[in-house]
Amino acid sequence: MKIDVLTLFPEMFHGVFSSSIMKKAADKEKVSFRAVNFRDYADGKHKVVDDYPYGGGAGMVLKPQPLFDAVEALKEEAETAPRIILMCPQGERYTQKKAEELAREEHLIFLCGHYEGYDERVRTHLVTDEISIGDYVLTGGELGAMVVADSIVRLLPGVLGNDDSAVQDSFSSGLLEHPHYTRPADFRGMKVPDVLTSGNHRHIDEWRREQSLKRTWERRPDLFDHYPLTEEEKQLIDSWKMKNTT
Amino acid sequence: MKIDVLTLFPEMFHGVFSSSIMKKAADKEKVSFRAVNFRDYADGKHKVVDDYPYGGGAGMVLKPQPLFDAVEALKEEAETAPRIILMCPQGERYTQKKAEELAREEHLIFLCGHYEGYDERVRTHLVTDEISIGDYVLTGGELGAMVVADSIVRLLPGVLGNDDSAVQDSFSSGLLEHPHYTRPADFRGMKVPDVLTSGNHRHIDEWRREQSLKRTWERRPDLFDHYPLTEEEKQLIDSWKMKNTT
Repeated sequence: MKIDVLTLFPEMFHGVFSSSIMKKAADKEKVSFRAVNFRDYADGKHKVVDDYPYGGGAGMVLKPQPLFDAVEALKEEAETAPRIILMCPQGERYTQKKAEELAREEHLIFLCGHYEGYDERVRTHLVTDEISIGDYVLTGGELGAMVVADSIVRLLPGVLGNDDSAVQDSFSSGLLEHPHYTRPADFRGMKVPDVLTSGNHRHIDEWRREQSLKRTWERRPDLFDHYPLTEEEKQLIDSWKMKNTT
Repeated sequence: MKIDVLTLFPEMFHGVFSSSIMKKAADKEKVSFRAVNFRDYADGKHKVVDDYPYGGGAGMVLKPQPLFDAVEALKEEAETAPRIILMCPQGERYTQKKAEELAREEHLIFLCGHYEGYDERVRTHLVTDEISIGDYVLTGGELGAMVVADSIVRLLPGVLGNDDSAVQDSFSSGLLEHPHYTRPADFRGMKVPDVLTSGNHRHIDEWRREQSLKRTWERRPDLFDHYPLTEEEKQLIDSWKMKNTT
């Protein structure tokens, strides 16, 4: 997979692209990253990338020309049609399902604005996807592009070892994870639940399933919308509800 | 504000902390950042930070000792009680409201795991907040900590200029933004809407309000749950609904 990022701040990506999973994946030749300054593609001596908005108002707007020309240059080098992803608050909310979809592509180009708005023609005529990573305001699209890239790269075959992937992936099961404990069994008076040191694997599995269900019920009951509960699970939740109301 | 990050990959933060808004805020002495490797606080010659989970299963679990000791060392240096924030998929979903709350603090400590689970005692006895930036799986908490830090730092008084803050902040109004356009009025045959070049500011304002409403209705109708619609706005939306069903 090839990941190109168009940004005015390519130096922001140095730390992330050169460490952790990103570096591992690049070393294994599963992915190649590039952070490209689209100012280099701006027409004119002064390489201006933004201008005042038509109709007035505060703030500047990114001009269409530098972004269109940068994308076209990257497309020319490539063999396959890329997905062109605009990071913006108006985009579709990013999910694990979208990560899985994008992980099947060969070439992704991220467009990151900074402080400013995009000219609408970028949105309507250049990009294939608009993504928002959440309902909060960030200074630019760069961190969003790193987040999306990380979530995709870790899904590429051969990038994560089996051990690495196991723990956090249980989130993909549809429920929140059960608690984890490791040594010491007593840390400054805080103890590990007896069941986990009992050696009884049926009990351990039951406890974990129940804890996972309970945590989801307490923190993220909205996840049940897409998780078909068994009769037994429904009864458990009812028993917790009873306790809470008495 | 002081922002400390506990991580096994401090080098991931170099690019982000030394550019863009983060650097601007640090240069103005509005914030100081530190990325601390909590492996340095691990007991024993081999500085081990993780261990097998009690009860069995794949994956490793971060031991409590290094994280507890690292947080205690950072607390000792500080004058005020810090917020101690665990980045994890089980945490509360991050929102702009939470960013505004955290922006009033003097000291934040982020705990970032990587690949692995946390020992539950970190969750129950050490941290004050658990945050998830969205429903997708990341390799570690580092990118989440950068996202949360960026969203907070830009809210600190004196960090953003007026111009910088204006554009994206309209998202905080509760609706998605209207489209922006800048020169040229005709870019490769794609034209700016006439109203924006009309000079009639009442019409421009109306058009923008309507576009903002329409975009929200099309892409994120859930945002209306917290946005009291006027009678006029309701009628507009009804007219779009009519069009869609005929």
